[in-house]
Amino acid sequence: MEKLINKIKTYGIVTGDDILKVDSFINHNIDVSLTTEIGREFAKRFENDNITKIVTAESSGIAPAFATAQALGADVVFARKNQSLTLNDASGELLSREIFSFTKNAPVTIYISKRYISPSDRILIIDDFLANGEVCAALTAIVQQTGATVAGIGIVIEKSFQKGREKLGKIKIESLAQIVSLKDGEIKFKSTN
Amino acid sequence: MEKLINKIKTYGIVTGDDILKVDSFINHNIDVSLTTEIGREFAKRFENDNITKIVTAESSGIAPAFATAQALGADVVFARKNQSLTLNDASGELLSREIFSFTKNAPVTIYISKRYISPSDRILIIDDFLANGEVCAALTAIVQQTGATVAGIGIVIEKSFQKGREKLGKIKIESLAQIVSLKDGEIKFKSTN
Repeated sequence: MEKLINKIKTYGIVTGDDILKVDSFINHNIDVSLTTEIGREFAKRFENDNITKIVTAESSGIAPAFATAQALGADVVFARKNQSLTLNDASGELLSREIFSFTKNAPVTIYISKRYISPSDRILIIDDFLANGEVCAALTAIVQQTGATVAGIGIVIEKSFQKGREKLGKIKIESLAQIVSLKDGEIKFKSTN
Repeated sequence: MEKLINKIKTYGIVTGDDILKVDSFINHNIDVSLTTEIGREFAKRFENDNITKIVTAESSGIAPAFATAQALGADVVFARKNQSLTLNDASGELLSREIFSFTKNAPVTIYISKRYISPSDRILIIDDFLANGEVCAALTAIVQQTGATVAGIGIVIEKSFQKGREKLGKIKIESLAQIVSLKDGEIKFKSTN
C-alpha cells in the first residue's frame, strides 16, 4: 500500500537492527485518515473470504481492526492482555495463551471470551505488526479452540526478516507493507509492495 | 443517547454495587456500528469547540476515540499504560501520571509523548467510562502540562454516583449515558438521558 509505505519512509524511526518505531501514526498518535484507508484496503483484500468477525489484540491493533470492521460491516473482538476485574472468569468462558512480548520483554497472557466467537464464524485477525508471530499464532490458536475458522490475517507492517509468516503456516496473510531489512538504520521494503 | 441506553439495558451486566460489565459491545466485543454512531454523537456535541485532536487511554477508549476523530477530521493520541520498549524516553519527551486502576486493582502509570500535542491544540478527551475520574484527571493534567487546552471530555458511560465529574471541575463534559445507581443489580439512568 503505497501511501502507508511512504508514511513509513518519512516518519518511521529505526532503533537497533530490528525495531521500527511508528509512534507518530500507529502506536501512539493515530493517523485516523490513513487508518481508515488501511481498513478499506484490508476489506478489499479479504472481500471474497466471507469474513464475519475481526479479532485483534489490545492496544495498537484496535484502530486498524475497527476501521476494517467498518468497511466489512463486522464487529471486532479485541483480546485482553492480562486479566482485569471486569474480565473475570467466573463462568469459565475465557480462553487464553501465554506469549512472550518482545516490546514489554516479559510474558503476557492474552484472553478471549468464547462467548463472542461462534463455531460458524470466519475470523479475520488484524494486527499492527507481524514480527515473530507470537500474537497472531496465539490468536489463531484461541480462535480455532472455539471451533471457528481463521479465514485470514491482515498485517499493517510485516517484518519479513523475522519468522512470523513461517510460524503461521498456510493461513492467507495480507501485509500492507513488507520490510525485508532494518539494518544500519535503513528501511528496505520488499520490491513487490 | 437512546440507542446506547437501550443496549446497556439489554446487555449490561451488573456485578456488585458499582461494576457494570459491557464486554459484549464496548470492552471486549466492540459493536462497530454503535461505536461509529457514538463517534458522530460526540462530534455533534463538540462541533463548536474547535477540537484539533482527540486524546484517550488504551485500550477501551481507542475505538470510540477513533470514531469521534473520524467524524471530526482529527487524529487520536492514545496514552500508553506502563512503558514499552517502543515508547522509551531517550529524548525526555514522555509526560506521565500515576493513577490507581480500580479494574486492575493496582497502580498504573500512563504516558503521553509531548511530541504529539502542541500548545495550540484544543483537545477532546474521550473515554469509555467515567467513575472516579482517575484516568480523565490524569489525561487532563498531562495535556495541560503540554500547554494545550482541554476543550472537553466525552464519556460513553458515566457512573454519576461516583466522584468523577466533581473531580474534573469546570471542563465541559458530555456523557452519552448517565447511570445514577447500580444498586441491587438494577441499572438506573438519569432521567434526562
